[in-house]
Amino acid sequence: MENTIDSKKNELRLNQITETILDSYERLGGINHLEGPNLPSKKEVSRLVKSLSTIMFPGFYEEATINKNHPEGYLLAQCSTVLECLTNLLQKSLRHECKDGVTCLRSEGDCWDDAVEIGFRLMENIPMIREVVHQDIKAAFKGDPAASSYFEIVLSYPSVQAILVHRLAHFLEMQKVPFIPRMMSEYLHEKTGIDIHPGAKIGNGFFIDHGTGVVIGSTSIIGNNVKLYQHVTLGALSLTDVDRLRNEQKKRHPTVEDNVTIYAGATILGGKTVIGSGSVIGGNVWLTRSVPPDTTVTFDSPYLIFKQKDKVEKHVIDYQI
Amino acid sequence: MENTIDSKKNELRLNQITETILDSYERLGGINHLEGPNLPSKKEVSRLVKSLSTIMFPGFYEEATINKNHPEGYLLAQCSTVLECLTNLLQKSLRHECKDGVTCLRSEGDCWDDAVEIGFRLMENIPMIREVVHQDIKAAFKGDPAASSYFEIVLSYPSVQAILVHRLAHFLEMQKVPFIPRMMSEYLHEKTGIDIHPGAKIGNGFFIDHGTGVVIGSTSIIGNNVKLYQHVTLGALSLTDVDRLRNEQKKRHPTVEDNVTIYAGATILGGKTVIGSGSVIGGNVWLTRSVPPDTTVTFDSPYLIFKQKDKVEKHVIDYQI
Amino acid sequence: MENTIDSKKNELRLNQITETILDSYERLGGINHLEGPNLPSKKEVSRLVKSLSTIMFPGFYEEATINKNHPEGYLLAQCSTVLECLTNLLQKSLRHECKDGVTCLRSEGDCWDDAVEIGFRLMENIPMIREVVHQDIKAAFKGDPAASSYFEIVLSYPSVQAILVHRLAHFLEMQKVPFIPRMMSEYLHEKTGIDIHPGAKIGNGFFIDHGTGVVIGSTSIIGNNVKLYQHVTLGALSLTDVDRLRNEQKKRHPTVEDNVTIYAGATILGGKTVIGSGSVIGGNVWLTRSVPPDTTVTFDSPYLIFKQKDKVEKHVIDYQI
Repeated sequence: MENTIDSKKNELRLNQITETILDSYERLGGINHLEGPNLPSKKEVSRLVKSLSTIMFPGFYEEATINKNHPEGYLLAQCSTVLECLTNLLQKSLRHECKDGVTCLRSEGDCWDDAVEIGFRLMENIPMIREVVHQDIKAAFKGDPAASSYFEIVLSYPSVQAILVHRLAHFLEMQKVPFIPRMMSEYLHEKTGIDIHPGAKIGNGFFIDHGTGVVIGSTSIIGNNVKLYQHVTLGALSLTDVDRLRNEQKKRHPTVEDNVTIYAGATILGGKTVIGSGSVIGGNVWLTRSVPPDTTVTFDSPYLIFKQKDKVEKHVIDYQI
Repeated sequence: MENTIDSKKNELRLNQITETILDSYERLGGINHLEGPNLPSKKEVSRLVKSLSTIMFPGFYEEATINKNHPEGYLLAQCSTVLECLTNLLQKSLRHECKDGVTCLRSEGDCWDDAVEIGFRLMENIPMIREVVHQDIKAAFKGDPAASSYFEIVLSYPSVQAILVHRLAHFLEMQKVPFIPRMMSEYLHEKTGIDIHPGAKIGNGFFIDHGTGVVIGSTSIIGNNVKLYQHVTLGALSLTDVDRLRNEQKKRHPTVEDNVTIYAGATILGGKTVIGSGSVIGGNVWLTRSVPPDTTVTFDSPYLIFKQKDKVEKHVIDYQI
Repeated sequence: MENTIDSKKNELRLNQITETILDSYERLGGINHLEGPNLPSKKEVSRLVKSLSTIMFPGFYEEATINKNHPEGYLLAQCSTVLECLTNLLQKSLRHECKDGVTCLRSEGDCWDDAVEIGFRLMENIPMIREVVHQDIKAAFKGDPAASSYFEIVLSYPSVQAILVHRLAHFLEMQKVPFIPRMMSEYLHEKTGIDIHPGAKIGNGFFIDHGTGVVIGSTSIIGNNVKLYQHVTLGALSLTDVDRLRNEQKKRHPTVEDNVTIYAGATILGGKTVIGSGSVIGGNVWLTRSVPPDTTVTFDSPYLIFKQKDKVEKHVIDYQI
């Protein structure tokens, strides 16, 4: 492209633009360095998630191959790199304490020690998290006749990717790390359309089929062997006083007990709503009340209208899939 | 991998493949260079969006750190690079005028001058757009008790990413730039599952919670302080004559006035449909008629069926979340 | 960052972490190299999809420009590179045969010959697939008044990206290639929120508007000129015996005949469910029974409740969009 834009007049115009943007930074904030030590960036967090995933399932995400006979050296190097990156991000996060939407700064030294400790703890929990994710993979195989092998599930099921990252993010959330857990979930939300807040507590053997549009709120509690389909929402009821809710950290999202199946498009709302163990919630159901164990909930069959040129028929919907 | 595929027979086969693909390019089009000056590519547009986002919130997307004491030099260089890239893409786009689905070519000179002017105008509007996005961030904080700080919102809320890019894309759409605005929206749709056509007019303090599955059509008009949840559609009614609609650029999507909340899964259709200010639209509602101000719209409570081994109960749904 | 974590104590801790992770690999599997020849990685498959898309529409995805006068040389080199990459991935996949969730290994030689043959066949089918995708682009233009040109559709419509990759993945699925077809679909699901199993058979002139949340199951059959909107599910009925279903490969998903339109949020389930040609399925409809040709299916109009301070009104929903 031979065209360029560096005439005298344009230079002036560009200088003015730079000045007004700098003014805007001063006035409105939102520029990392001007307000103190930098926060973790989206790019760094996405790199962290990829590295952790590669340690969880070597070779599935990246092409990295490990020497079959001496994997220790390679893995040690990899763990060391991830830990370094993780600790730096943790320190950046820990320096920013949020209170009522305002961010205060903690001292660098305190944060570094905490960051090292939390980083190590996450790494030490990886074998345990692999154990749990292994149960999730089994649940996916058990739950989907289109799955032909465990490998296929690790390589191509968004549910496994989502639950893997959720279990890592939830660990950091429990350590009260700011920013990073939510950034990890959002990275996954981008990838899979599955939006699980890192605060949600999820039992073993969890499977989400298809996944796009699933929303699981921050105070949800989910038991073992629960299966969800696409577009399921575990959400909060109407928000009347957001600031009070924020400070009280009240349970605002449902509890789903063991062995529950929730079909596509169902919406379940409220912190006191409990779906009893063994229950099945039908597609598109809208629930704001609790359901006792071993109950099937469906819409009271409404009618469908079939219209053709010369006739109109009514048919009962069968919501029991 | 020691295996290779360059035997004599295979070479012939590969040559034939190349020939038939070239034939296909000639016959069906869809190859950039054969039909004239190149269009902007997806990759270039995604790079543009990232650069503009980095200027909007330095350090949040990329790791770039700016010298705290002399940020002007760095920012000037950055603005200059973005402007160069932007202008080149604008010129590529402007050369292709679309009429009835056919693309004509404008002269290179005309397009360059227009491209420079539009590029500068977008850059000059960045401080104003930051101001507006700042209101959007405030609205997100006000609307979600799970948000702990403004920083967390900028770093991890898909809504902020979507509205930021929409406001930039909408600016270019208003300047009648072809291709790029829609490519920017689709880049964001990919990232967030939020599909906002660049033509949509959106007021201040806009917030979408969760976001996946939201669709906002090209002629939608949205007032101030509007809040949407996941899977909300602002769409068009049935299309009877697509070509006429395309040429007339008729308003086909709803108007949503100030201070309206629309809960998850609601579908609102039609260019004459107006949701009056202060109204609340309940989850899953399907609306093709206008709603007066300060009105709550919900389904007429249908029943849910709770089935257990020995009994069946009916419960009224409470759609008022 | 001057902080580092290489004190003596920490080194020991890191060594222990490495050991327990290695133990976990041994016990639970899920590491590529320890269990035999590597599987294709997510990254390799995403690169393959991008290269194939670039051959389908040169310059639209990447910036690559081809010499206008001598495109053969460039295209030949590009085809040769893609074929090499494709054949290697195919061989990796073909070595892993899945039976009842367990993976057996086939001999390297057999797989290489098969891989070369299947790789060539896919490349030879590219002109034919371009022909079909050209019909899909026409259908998108015909179906969406917001589209201003074919170029805009190729550059920015998720539907075109999804169907293009589906047609390539479906070809490989028909050749019984394990892993790769599903990994290609999931790559696309990530990008677009459109989840089409590679097994689904889809006719010409297929268009999905907006797309996020669409699910099309593995044994679905879709005719010509079918148009879907966002959140449409073509799914299976309740799964009572997953292992039997897996082995029998029974038809579990619907058949949609020619010229059918299915509006946003509709759920159609079951292998015996047939939507007759020319029918229109309304928004949010839940169908588990067949629909004769030329039929419009909507909900039996339920009521909406409009509540204001001083009055409550009931309005009939008009689901006929």
